[in-house]
Amino acid sequence: MINVIVDAFGGDNAPDAVVEGSIMAVQNLGIKVTLVGNEKKIHEIAEKNNYSLVGLDVVHAETVIDVHEDPKSILKSRKDCSMAVGFQLLRDGKGDAFVSAGSTGALLMGATFIAKRLKGIKRAALSPLLPTETGYMILLDGGANIDCSPEALLQFAVMGSAYMEKVMNITSPRVGLLNIGTEDTKGRDLEKDTYKLLSEAPVNFVGNIEARELPFGKCDVLVTDGYSGNIALKLYEGMGLYFAGVLKGMLKKNVKTKIAASLLMGEVKDFKKKMDYSEVGGAVMLGIAGTVIKAHGSSDAKAFYNAIRQAKECVDGGITDQISLYLDSQKGGNDVD
Amino acid sequence: MINVIVDAFGGDNAPDAVVEGSIMAVQNLGIKVTLVGNEKKIHEIAEKNNYSLVGLDVVHAETVIDVHEDPKSILKSRKDCSMAVGFQLLRDGKGDAFVSAGSTGALLMGATFIAKRLKGIKRAALSPLLPTETGYMILLDGGANIDCSPEALLQFAVMGSAYMEKVMNITSPRVGLLNIGTEDTKGRDLEKDTYKLLSEAPVNFVGNIEARELPFGKCDVLVTDGYSGNIALKLYEGMGLYFAGVLKGMLKKNVKTKIAASLLMGEVKDFKKKMDYSEVGGAVMLGIAGTVIKAHGSSDAKAFYNAIRQAKECVDGGITDQISLYLDSQKGGNDVD
Repeated sequence: MINVIVDAFGGDNAPDAVVEGSIMAVQNLGIKVTLVGNEKKIHEIAEKNNYSLVGLDVVHAETVIDVHEDPKSILKSRKDCSMAVGFQLLRDGKGDAFVSAGSTGALLMGATFIAKRLKGIKRAALSPLLPTETGYMILLDGGANIDCSPEALLQFAVMGSAYMEKVMNITSPRVGLLNIGTEDTKGRDLEKDTYKLLSEAPVNFVGNIEARELPFGKCDVLVTDGYSGNIALKLYEGMGLYFAGVLKGMLKKNVKTKIAASLLMGEVKDFKKKMDYSEVGGAVMLGIAGTVIKAHGSSDAKAFYNAIRQAKECVDGGITDQISLYLDSQKGGNDVD
Repeated sequence: MINVIVDAFGGDNAPDAVVEGSIMAVQNLGIKVTLVGNEKKIHEIAEKNNYSLVGLDVVHAETVIDVHEDPKSILKSRKDCSMAVGFQLLRDGKGDAFVSAGSTGALLMGATFIAKRLKGIKRAALSPLLPTETGYMILLDGGANIDCSPEALLQFAVMGSAYMEKVMNITSPRVGLLNIGTEDTKGRDLEKDTYKLLSEAPVNFVGNIEARELPFGKCDVLVTDGYSGNIALKLYEGMGLYFAGVLKGMLKKNVKTKIAASLLMGEVKDFKKKMDYSEVGGAVMLGIAGTVIKAHGSSDAKAFYNAIRQAKECVDGGITDQISLYLDSQKGGNDVD
């Protein structure tokens, strides 16, 4: 049975929402969950809410790493924190995947230096899923590495393709390179060199994608360096918030618009659901030896449930093996079947 | 009297929309316009539409540079095109400003190598105005220079501040640095070094701005390199288009939502106006010896009118002198008064 390790003390709504989401996951997904964190507090929550902890293990961790702490401290002064202990369990094979809504910086540190990168992977990528007009697009890198080589971007393309194929069930996912124009001569040296590598890679490369096209589903996998990716990711989120606010303001303006609002209720709800990141889970950390999911800091119980479901789907889809297979094929010079 | 030189053959709707917009400008702004392009065709348009060309000069240019042509050709094989001739007139002091909706690449070439940069300016910046929740924000660089030094970004901050103060009437414009976090240790070397320069510069530096905050008016001047700036600019436009489409789809879905649409007509119109880039003019090319405005390729007559009005306001505000003053102060080591 798949066992998902969950950081019970990461995120704004921890530990209550984490415990609740984990129980939902155990009851609905046919998996085991190992909750990591202060054992006493976790049991108190269960008692207070009359939760059954059947199907859940609890592994004690003494402290919690704060989002304002130096991420490096997860390796030293805070190696007893819930996130560090979770990564240690993953590394030691005590679980198949790890989910945390804690500090992104600490998560990157822990993933890279406790769980460790897959052998041959240049950079692990934080890979969020962005909603588009036609579905979802995975973005690599969303902010783990501010400087990247063309070779790292090529690996991002392979890893993102594996995810979209095995978890999102998209046949031959289209890989796009974020750029300032569509011609292959556009961009910085990074984009020009990556364009060449992707053209010859075993991925379905559809060329450069301008930022204007991102919401319209022109590709399934979008590769870029972590600086540009973070700008794109956060602007995407910001514009979503902005338009949600505009729409709300429009509908609440006066009696007439409030009547309109009541007529549009279903449509507005559908749109909100579409833009709701928690529906799809969190951002997957690709390139690590083991499945690691970064849940949103503001995750509620449902979002934790979805992040755990996403972790299970990554394990089911054999994403890590898929990436390892590719890396082996590159080493030996053989093609992946 | 201010004379604005206008490329009559640049843009998708040229020359008709350009001629119409120019006539509107002459009639409403108390300025002169010099139309550049095929003289015969311009007179044919005037005759056909019964337009008076009083207050307009026409300077003949034999050819037009296409958006698909190599931008460099404006300096050689196409130096008789309307855009090249417009820049020559600006350089020779035959007008105060130049407006074109033609190829951005050719415009950058022409601005830099025909009109030329102001002495001391490292890079000229394409500077679009983005609508925000509270007003407008000028973005430098929107895509003219994919690689920039911290010193160039400092100059962008000064030039953008001059524009927002003198044209948009904002006292002590807030300058923000686009970055992936708010702390001064965030970002690439470019951002870290620029942060230090801006902290000591004669501008109202408010620190790093994350992309998530862009729509909410946290700064008046946003500085970044042209690669990141182009990503932000185009994603801003793309998200605007996406949400306009979502809103339209929502309102046209069925009888019920169509009733809602009729109740929301005024609000939707206000929102569209807010997001309409042509209301504010075009993107100003800052750092050039003379005012240069890049109008949108899809500009209609009203958009050309607004771009010409913007050119006049730049001349009225003495933007170029303002930037020169700053450059002089840096040379001599004196403060600007």
